[in-house]
Amino acid sequence: MTVIATTQPRAALTEEARAELSALLGDRFTTSLPVREHHGKDESYHTPFPPDGVAFANSTEEVSAIVRICAKHKLPIIPFGTGTSLEGGIAALAGGITIDLSGMQQILRVSPEDLDVTVQAGVTRKQLNEHLRDTGLFFPIDPGANASLGGMSATRASGTNAVRYGTMRENVLGLTVVLADGRVIKTGGRARKSAAGYDLTRLFVGSEGTLGIITEVTLKLYGIPEAISSAVCAFSTIKGAVDTVIQTIQVGVPVARIELLDEVQIDAVNKYSKLDYAVAPTLFFEFHGTEAGVKEQAEMVAAIAAEHGGMEFAWATRPEDRSKLWQARHDAYYAALALRPGSKGWPTDVCVPISRLADCILETKQDLAESNMLAPMVGHVGDGNFHLVYVLDPEKPAELAEAQRLADKMVTRALEMGGTCTGEHGIGYGKMAFLEQETGEAFNVMGDLKRAFDPDNLLNPGKVVRV
Amino acid sequence: MTVIATTQPRAALTEEARAELSALLGDRFTTSLPVREHHGKDESYHTPFPPDGVAFANSTEEVSAIVRICAKHKLPIIPFGTGTSLEGGIAALAGGITIDLSGMQQILRVSPEDLDVTVQAGVTRKQLNEHLRDTGLFFPIDPGANASLGGMSATRASGTNAVRYGTMRENVLGLTVVLADGRVIKTGGRARKSAAGYDLTRLFVGSEGTLGIITEVTLKLYGIPEAISSAVCAFSTIKGAVDTVIQTIQVGVPVARIELLDEVQIDAVNKYSKLDYAVAPTLFFEFHGTEAGVKEQAEMVAAIAAEHGGMEFAWATRPEDRSKLWQARHDAYYAALALRPGSKGWPTDVCVPISRLADCILETKQDLAESNMLAPMVGHVGDGNFHLVYVLDPEKPAELAEAQRLADKMVTRALEMGGTCTGEHGIGYGKMAFLEQETGEAFNVMGDLKRAFDPDNLLNPGKVVRV
Repeated sequence: MTVIATTQPRAALTEEARAELSALLGDRFTTSLPVREHHGKDESYHTPFPPDGVAFANSTEEVSAIVRICAKHKLPIIPFGTGTSLEGGIAALAGGITIDLSGMQQILRVSPEDLDVTVQAGVTRKQLNEHLRDTGLFFPIDPGANASLGGMSATRASGTNAVRYGTMRENVLGLTVVLADGRVIKTGGRARKSAAGYDLTRLFVGSEGTLGIITEVTLKLYGIPEAISSAVCAFSTIKGAVDTVIQTIQVGVPVARIELLDEVQIDAVNKYSKLDYAVAPTLFFEFHGTEAGVKEQAEMVAAIAAEHGGMEFAWATRPEDRSKLWQARHDAYYAALALRPGSKGWPTDVCVPISRLADCILETKQDLAESNMLAPMVGHVGDGNFHLVYVLDPEKPAELAEAQRLADKMVTRALEMGGTCTGEHGIGYGKMAFLEQETGEAFNVMGDLKRAFDPDNLLNPGKVVRV
Repeated sequence: MTVIATTQPRAALTEEARAELSALLGDRFTTSLPVREHHGKDESYHTPFPPDGVAFANSTEEVSAIVRICAKHKLPIIPFGTGTSLEGGIAALAGGITIDLSGMQQILRVSPEDLDVTVQAGVTRKQLNEHLRDTGLFFPIDPGANASLGGMSATRASGTNAVRYGTMRENVLGLTVVLADGRVIKTGGRARKSAAGYDLTRLFVGSEGTLGIITEVTLKLYGIPEAISSAVCAFSTIKGAVDTVIQTIQVGVPVARIELLDEVQIDAVNKYSKLDYAVAPTLFFEFHGTEAGVKEQAEMVAAIAAEHGGMEFAWATRPEDRSKLWQARHDAYYAALALRPGSKGWPTDVCVPISRLADCILETKQDLAESNMLAPMVGHVGDGNFHLVYVLDPEKPAELAEAQRLADKMVTRALEMGGTCTGEHGIGYGKMAFLEQETGEAFNVMGDLKRAFDPDNLLNPGKVVRV
């Protein structure tokens, strides 16, 4: 970690810059140490790097004004939503100013008749769905954390529903973005499709604050299905569970969710969420559709599961039972960490073509069996995406080294199988070497892009690309 | 048109460059006038601009070598697939070399178990589906023309199935691209989702050859549905037809196709394809799913249509009947032109949020009623996208001026309704002013991007962006 820190030259927060930010924001600009420390650390094992100051913005115009001040003084700028990222994306590696967007909480427009919405970047996914409750609509993308929609856009987040509804890539229709020089642009729009020039929307989605700061997001919404049904199914082997997933995807059953938890993760979930699932590799399913459609999907999948050593489906159809089931799934990361008090998580995040998923998971489990690392597995397996969370003490170099060794092996395997080093967590400063390994010459093109958008390297420097 | 031509400085094809290209390609490099003329014109009214030479490439390596020669001699480079674009995208405004990719016909890999395929850029959509015939899979994106998959990627094409399956934006998993200096990069990959750095794939999709030359494409495939059913339904009013579409989308029926043809277009289709549809505003539907699912969808839509003045559904379930129906729909553009022998088409392409579709179409029809322009209407209305084709004589300035007046009004209306100037045809050199009107400051950012990727402005110069 130290290596990364020292390669980033540290810009000084001068009295003049401080005065300008205070004049703009009053007490919404602070250099208080606890606030700075809070903004420098995410939910992972990565070493925290506090910024030199934190600016709380309430509008696009304020973000633009803050950026203009930072640009003038050559201060790094780090956008911050809820701090739930996992690859050090919000670490202030070179100091500078964190812009906290969590005060940008307005839902600017809901258009039920067009199934879309525009929100400020600080609105969280749960807040949006709470707001939509009486409209019959919902927004499906659900990373484990209650992240902000700006942050989810910036990291190209996904979650359990992506197998049916896509990721942020497919669900962001347009953005308002503040550029490195303070200019404000709007990308995309409300049309469902467009061939109007370069796809700037998708360039900013997943750019992790390194090309611009997302301040408003227009999103697709979906009608809450007429029927929703969830089920849990334990398997005698992890191969049986994964083969069930593969066949379900290959025959085209439009499952809304199909999630794998291995026996270690199920044990953690049982303890953390006070549940009593059989401690075995387990799939969590959800089916969306008409009453008849859901019944048909469930029958098809149950038949596939039975062929692969699946037990009886345990059904949850009442909303409160479904919520409990999925809350337990969403808490899997916290459940993993709770297995070892005081630990931090190093989550891996490979994603492979579905035909290679069983091989990838089984070989990864074999590596783990030969290690002493505690690492529950959980996966959005319908997408070919799964996570091991290495539960470790980041103060112990031997544990970090072992996690690095296992993670390197896992990513290399996934890349050899035609996969990616990150399905949904992003690059941050934790995965730049993997990104280069994965993309080759295209990694240099990403650097060129960064230089074109941000010639002074002020926007979240040290993340995603090398400049 | 002349204005555009003269703003592009013309680079000379020197003897030296000509010799290098001939040495590389033998008789696959030509300066023959008929070949050059063929490569300078697309299927629209736009003034043709022949290149100075045409290079027929068979591989990524050859494209790279051609680009290196052109870069050395500062010659413009225009990629060419099948020449079926509609906004002058393949016009050699500043001369230079057209690279014809139609010889790149290899289907490099089909992975039925992962529902994906990698093809060379010259493979056409029909060729791909022919190749897939025995696999139970298909590729759904279908612009009217039998375009190349490289060209479809470059223009972010869509077509009738986009309402269910998305556009090229959603269906391209990865690309091989030759950059302006001849470097070759691979973008994206075979994982169904990825958060690995900037989304270069979607940056090249829709960039119309101005940022790089797409030579290979990895695409999603889909299982041919268990049941497919098509239907045609005539309406007493166009409002009734459009309101049927709006309600169908709003209640979330997963229609595979929902297409509007107005009475003028139906008349043209009847004449061109020797059919006898009632001359009235008409919807063409297709439903994909299980037997039960298709029946359920069809019943829901039939009930909605009946409420809005729809007649009986005329069903086509046999594959040959469905093919005939959709071939007639795909030939709509040619049918429109056949109404007036010797004419050319000026197709408009707005796309608006679905709630505004009825207003947009009715106001547009009203403008047309007050003009003497012949202009059939056809639309991928489930996406909010529709086309008027102004059928005109491009030698008559008064007709061009009237088409321009109507098109300006139509685009301005669509933008005021939150829509886009092009749902699927792209910008080319025909719509740059509209793109600027639509995107504002973001238009300048697109220019910055272009300069970063192509500092000498050699890649399809004069298209999409202003540099």
